[in-house]
Amino acid sequence: MTAAVNFKNCGSVLVTGASRGLGLQIVDILASGGFSPGKIIATTRNPANTQKLQELAEKHPNVHIITLDVLNQQSIENCVEEVGQLVQGEGLNCLINNAGINVVADFHTVTAEKMMENFNTNAVAPLMITKAFLPLLKLAASKGGAGGASGMGIQRAAVINMTSLLGSVELNWGERANNFKWYPYRTSKSALNMVSRCMAVDLEPDGILCMAIHPGWVRTDMGGSQAPLSPDESISSVLSVIGGLTEKDHGSFLNFTGEVLPW
Amino acid sequence: MTAAVNFKNCGSVLVTGASRGLGLQIVDILASGGFSPGKIIATTRNPANTQKLQELAEKHPNVHIITLDVLNQQSIENCVEEVGQLVQGEGLNCLINNAGINVVADFHTVTAEKMMENFNTNAVAPLMITKAFLPLLKLAASKGGAGGASGMGIQRAAVINMTSLLGSVELNWGERANNFKWYPYRTSKSALNMVSRCMAVDLEPDGILCMAIHPGWVRTDMGGSQAPLSPDESISSVLSVIGGLTEKDHGSFLNFTGEVLPW
Repeated sequence: MTAAVNFKNCGSVLVTGASRGLGLQIVDILASGGFSPGKIIATTRNPANTQKLQELAEKHPNVHIITLDVLNQQSIENCVEEVGQLVQGEGLNCLINNAGINVVADFHTVTAEKMMENFNTNAVAPLMITKAFLPLLKLAASKGGAGGASGMGIQRAAVINMTSLLGSVELNWGERANNFKWYPYRTSKSALNMVSRCMAVDLEPDGILCMAIHPGWVRTDMGGSQAPLSPDESISSVLSVIGGLTEKDHGSFLNFTGEVLPW
Repeated sequence: MTAAVNFKNCGSVLVTGASRGLGLQIVDILASGGFSPGKIIATTRNPANTQKLQELAEKHPNVHIITLDVLNQQSIENCVEEVGQLVQGEGLNCLINNAGINVVADFHTVTAEKMMENFNTNAVAPLMITKAFLPLLKLAASKGGAGGASGMGIQRAAVINMTSLLGSVELNWGERANNFKWYPYRTSKSALNMVSRCMAVDLEPDGILCMAIHPGWVRTDMGGSQAPLSPDESISSVLSVIGGLTEKDHGSFLNFTGEVLPW
């Protein structure tokens, strides 16, 4: 699988929300590829309830399952502690903030609580998680990776935020807007895009790449059965893009096919 | 004052957060202008504690002060009830969602609570307030206003969201980004921009204009003493832009000077 090729120089990848959907697919493709990263850290709220992930970990010794409730600060700190013991002095090379929810509500059904719930999981949690992993990301970045200390990319240190085209304010007009009138989800992803851009500014001095990527509309529990892409099609392409990221992509919002999307 | 000229055909304007800063300035200029709207409804959490607003209401009989805590659903509904009695069958022509806060925090000091607090006030409240006022806005829109039922503008019905340039993800790069590393504020305004765009889509069939405007960097309690604009300079320009809005501005993000800003 070509998608995983560029992960050969990546020592460790952490994926949140890895129990199902796109997160599970990321772990599957990374673990099964010919050029798998050194350590694949799959986090999920309840490791005991994730049979498919357990099977992947049994089959591939570089898959490590760690408990993480993305909304719980203590859980985040415990996860950082465990990851630190796992990666030791190498640090964490690639953090993929994938965990997300879709609290479906239109103008008439939306409530303040629904807005807050979606914002908390999709925009605030990636920020708090990235903050907590900063020491491990800086450690990895300081080593420079296989490409040398001057460049940026997943061989060194990167934060990837799984966002959505639906978070594009620019594209929320006309036919696209009329199809998906999801206030909590759209605003949470717009907010995540701003968080991603803010973090790119702050992580740059440490040589840590930060960007946001849209995985396409995928046949998962969230995407539904009508979506055009299979999880394999989406994530193969997403990982190919992530694997090839360089400093020119720092602070960007990319489609799963690699092109730049408007904010 | 030329700014208020185009409000002569606007029967009623409601401004949230009118006790101080830009909200107070809006009420002041609208009330003092030669072509003041029929009714200026100034909302604030604690009317008793707003001496300047009380003075304006005593001087100008078309200024009406109504209690509104933008974070309290019951308070919102009570406000709608009071406004309904005030405007009767004419409905509400112009809702200006001005109330906002800046929970200052950078990457190192930001917490989940700070993110949620700013998001709630700046992005969720304008949505919940607009939802609650929808019947009164629809009523005003159905009458068509002085310009006739086909056009859009404040003579008919409009929702104006006071946003910020700092909510532009596109512009959060380079020098601008390094000057204002405010995670809670920036994300809340990006989210408000998405809310504004979503509402524009949903309010369009009723002929209700919806847009977002950046008032500039202003010398208020929030903007600080170093800001280049006085409240009068900012709001004179903002009201001039609002007064001239037509259907071509529906769903837009405009600077206080009138030009289009990138999302």
